[in-house]
Amino acid sequence: MVIETQNEEPKHRIHLSKVGVKNLKTFVVTERSGLRHHIVPKVEITIDLPADLKGIHMSRLVESMTEELSDQFMVHPSIEEIQIKILEGLAHKHPFSRSEVRFDFEFGYSARTPVSNKRTWEVCDVTAITRKVNDSPFIHEVEIQVIGNTVCPHCMANNDGLTHIQRAIGKLRVVGTTKSIPTYGSMIDVIESSFSSKTYSLLKLEDEMHVTKQMHDNPLLIEDVCRNILQHAKDAYSESDLEIFAEARSLESIHKHDVIAEGRIVTNGD
Amino acid sequence: MVIETQNEEPKHRIHLSKVGVKNLKTFVVTERSGLRHHIVPKVEITIDLPADLKGIHMSRLVESMTEELSDQFMVHPSIEEIQIKILEGLAHKHPFSRSEVRFDFEFGYSARTPVSNKRTWEVCDVTAITRKVNDSPFIHEVEIQVIGNTVCPHCMANNDGLTHIQRAIGKLRVVGTTKSIPTYGSMIDVIESSFSSKTYSLLKLEDEMHVTKQMHDNPLLIEDVCRNILQHAKDAYSESDLEIFAEARSLESIHKHDVIAEGRIVTNGD
Amino acid sequence: MVIETQNEEPKHRIHLSKVGVKNLKTFVVTERSGLRHHIVPKVEITIDLPADLKGIHMSRLVESMTEELSDQFMVHPSIEEIQIKILEGLAHKHPFSRSEVRFDFEFGYSARTPVSNKRTWEVCDVTAITRKVNDSPFIHEVEIQVIGNTVCPHCMANNDGLTHIQRAIGKLRVVGTTKSIPTYGSMIDVIESSFSSKTYSLLKLEDEMHVTKQMHDNPLLIEDVCRNILQHAKDAYSESDLEIFAEARSLESIHKHDVIAEGRIVTNGD
Amino acid sequence: MVIETQNEEPKHRIHLSKVGVKNLKTFVVTERSGLRHHIVPKVEITIDLPADLKGIHMSRLVESMTEELSDQFMVHPSIEEIQIKILEGLAHKHPFSRSEVRFDFEFGYSARTPVSNKRTWEVCDVTAITRKVNDSPFIHEVEIQVIGNTVCPHCMANNDGLTHIQRAIGKLRVVGTTKSIPTYGSMIDVIESSFSSKTYSLLKLEDEMHVTKQMHDNPLLIEDVCRNILQHAKDAYSESDLEIFAEARSLESIHKHDVIAEGRIVTNGD
Repeated sequence: MVIETQNEEPKHRIHLSKVGVKNLKTFVVTERSGLRHHIVPKVEITIDLPADLKGIHMSRLVESMTEELSDQFMVHPSIEEIQIKILEGLAHKHPFSRSEVRFDFEFGYSARTPVSNKRTWEVCDVTAITRKVNDSPFIHEVEIQVIGNTVCPHCMANNDGLTHIQRAIGKLRVVGTTKSIPTYGSMIDVIESSFSSKTYSLLKLEDEMHVTKQMHDNPLLIEDVCRNILQHAKDAYSESDLEIFAEARSLESIHKHDVIAEGRIVTNGD
Repeated sequence: MVIETQNEEPKHRIHLSKVGVKNLKTFVVTERSGLRHHIVPKVEITIDLPADLKGIHMSRLVESMTEELSDQFMVHPSIEEIQIKILEGLAHKHPFSRSEVRFDFEFGYSARTPVSNKRTWEVCDVTAITRKVNDSPFIHEVEIQVIGNTVCPHCMANNDGLTHIQRAIGKLRVVGTTKSIPTYGSMIDVIESSFSSKTYSLLKLEDEMHVTKQMHDNPLLIEDVCRNILQHAKDAYSESDLEIFAEARSLESIHKHDVIAEGRIVTNGD
Repeated sequence: MVIETQNEEPKHRIHLSKVGVKNLKTFVVTERSGLRHHIVPKVEITIDLPADLKGIHMSRLVESMTEELSDQFMVHPSIEEIQIKILEGLAHKHPFSRSEVRFDFEFGYSARTPVSNKRTWEVCDVTAITRKVNDSPFIHEVEIQVIGNTVCPHCMANNDGLTHIQRAIGKLRVVGTTKSIPTYGSMIDVIESSFSSKTYSLLKLEDEMHVTKQMHDNPLLIEDVCRNILQHAKDAYSESDLEIFAEARSLESIHKHDVIAEGRIVTNGD
Repeated sequence: MVIETQNEEPKHRIHLSKVGVKNLKTFVVTERSGLRHHIVPKVEITIDLPADLKGIHMSRLVESMTEELSDQFMVHPSIEEIQIKILEGLAHKHPFSRSEVRFDFEFGYSARTPVSNKRTWEVCDVTAITRKVNDSPFIHEVEIQVIGNTVCPHCMANNDGLTHIQRAIGKLRVVGTTKSIPTYGSMIDVIESSFSSKTYSLLKLEDEMHVTKQMHDNPLLIEDVCRNILQHAKDAYSESDLEIFAEARSLESIHKHDVIAEGRIVTNGD
């Protein structure tokens, strides 16, 4: 007979907001609009724990994922739909008031070099979270991080056009319902269009010259990049209800440290 | 004549909540109650940016730190006092509504092995943030992370006393005014007393036997560790006004993934 | 007309052993014995540079990969064959005496829980390198890292059977020709059979009890784990010519630090 | 009576090259030529293990360090002398043929801004290893990593002077006896003088303009940076017997990936 330690009275009756598994790894395949993505996410699945129970049943959280993703050849329509199914499966196995599943992964997308028109693969970092609180609808939080660059306008203006240039990282995070949440592709476009220039895996000399000229024609402070992401997201998602966060970071070429900018806006689709 | 690009009109009039420098490194020495600490923090200093200004003066943020910490032999009373001075110095150099300085660093403290009574150095991770919003008092946020362990009571109860044991990590974060904020030493005590056992840099065989017995007498779920941290903090800081957060993570020895628990309480010193 | 800076005389005539690209990301699909793997490697491609040339043509290194991996749906027989093709393609684009391609990636494999017999996905870390020096045959170096655990026999022997247990990491690295190099699956088996117990993504209570008993029946020092990996590899690969390296690390549950062991043997298939 | 598990016969009689502790943390203070350094190293201490012994006595490795570094106020002449003392102390506690101690740490040094002449602190990463094999003299291996930048000469030559600029990282590693090993300060100078420009924690506008002009006057491929480090080290250390390795990496501003160059030379002081 099993002793259900989890159901015992805890020593301290304190409600816990999140209990679960972290750094669990799995494999998923998605396909949307004819584009297939092979994804190796690091997974976190958590629920809340009432003050009067000692513990949760951890293995049921893992099972809610393994049962959903048992077939490695199965093709899913989106990460968000997988996450909803995991939380729905979990609701049948374990009671909770609040549940959340988080995937951190690398996401690949194809691009073309700007002049030589060669096909490349680019990769960005994605965090996708789906959350359920009581009977409220599922809420999704998607954060995408893409590498671009900045050309300093302040140095350029004071230094006869000479300036410093550096790698920069742009982040866009959106929070909304299943209906509101945008595609990863559109979020990547919002970020890439916010830098002095976007970056490429492959650049032949004619591409490199083109990109370098473009960068010098579009000098931006890190504050400009952050505001560009916010404004471009607001324009792109004006029909949806979304909370939108942006962060931009530049790996300064004249310093050992970085400079950063962060902001937040809200769109209202009504 | 200098062109002040920062004072220009931005393309998009959006307020930014944080703009500044990150991953800046420096050195500080503190001494409190006769204990001296050599600290090599990674520093972030940020201010907010009004919607009608293009940028901030980044070098003034760095100067607010370098001027305060220019003398490498100077001994400071605490990290919190250094951070207040940096923000006060910054207020003379640059206008802002909201400013924040964050240090991430390793913090050493001495301990004694439990039976052989030998002296050791232990090291934990600290994040210390000081924040100023308009005319409100300075608010501090201190997070400490210490390594301990867990012994699974559920497996022990069902398996004739055999169980699995693993390294665990406890985090305590407190938020409060300068008057309320506790010492790092007391926070370390709160966390270390919340594990199945605390851990040591050095253990002779007699110590190892003692610690191992103690662990088996005190089996804890990760949920128990998290609640212990919250309860011990509540007991220790009952006279202060603090917002208190705890996180516990265990690097499961029978799994490749971790398990986690998080919670929050508030103390009210009145 | 293009100025070929790379072909200029360098300021200092010094031969460089490795020049190339690093932290490039891509996607590949492999299938071997009916098992399909979706892999997102971080790629490094390098060649040597003679003392009398200023630089290499970096974009040709990237092209040697993008041309080989342009079709995201293409299924390759193995990572080693992809790497050989990249170096063969590169040989047509750029002269070199020594070339090397390295992939770092996560590799998934299916497993079954030991008692409840449920199917799980496990993930390990792989580094795969292929190297070509002048007219010598291609040499491969494969390193696999798997998570298991250790139960301390020294504490157990002195402490009435009570002991400490912890997560451990085993690494096996083999170096040999295309004919000699073993499958990833066999390398994973070698490592997993060398711990006190292997670990699982999912364990129901009956599995957890089984694994915990098995661990206590098989207490091992980190030195034992390292020697087990070496001996098991020697036994498994006795028919091949391989240089074999092992590393084992245990995340001690009674200490904040780790303990490690490393060794090397050679098999001779003759 | 203690059961000495370590002295038992191992299951597999295989010699292990390295057994010991890793990720141990401590604190040291050094002073050389009036400059004081507070260092928080991550420590690895290892010895070899003969084929006929099951294990080593791990706690004696830790004690060889804690006994040497027990007094937090003690000022040591150099990291190399501390490491020699640790290995000498260990030789009295535990037999070995080969022993090694490794410190990884951040090292701070003061600098002056190039035009405004303000004092700053700069920080670099250091790995310092001391090794003893049988009766041979102590051998030291010191690796220093400093952040600088590159300005691409190939793009500049083909693009009417427009080019891309980026943060770069230079590494210099030297191996030699106690007599041969250079100061950290001289190694930092070798690396900093090898970039398009060195970098600073603080730059006022006049400094930023100066640095930016200097960079454009000194465009360098990553291959050039690597060869500069090797040549400058050869020039600086021509009177010593040293094995010298250099690595340079540039965080390309027009790509998401990095480019790298590596090389090796030997100086012979005779």
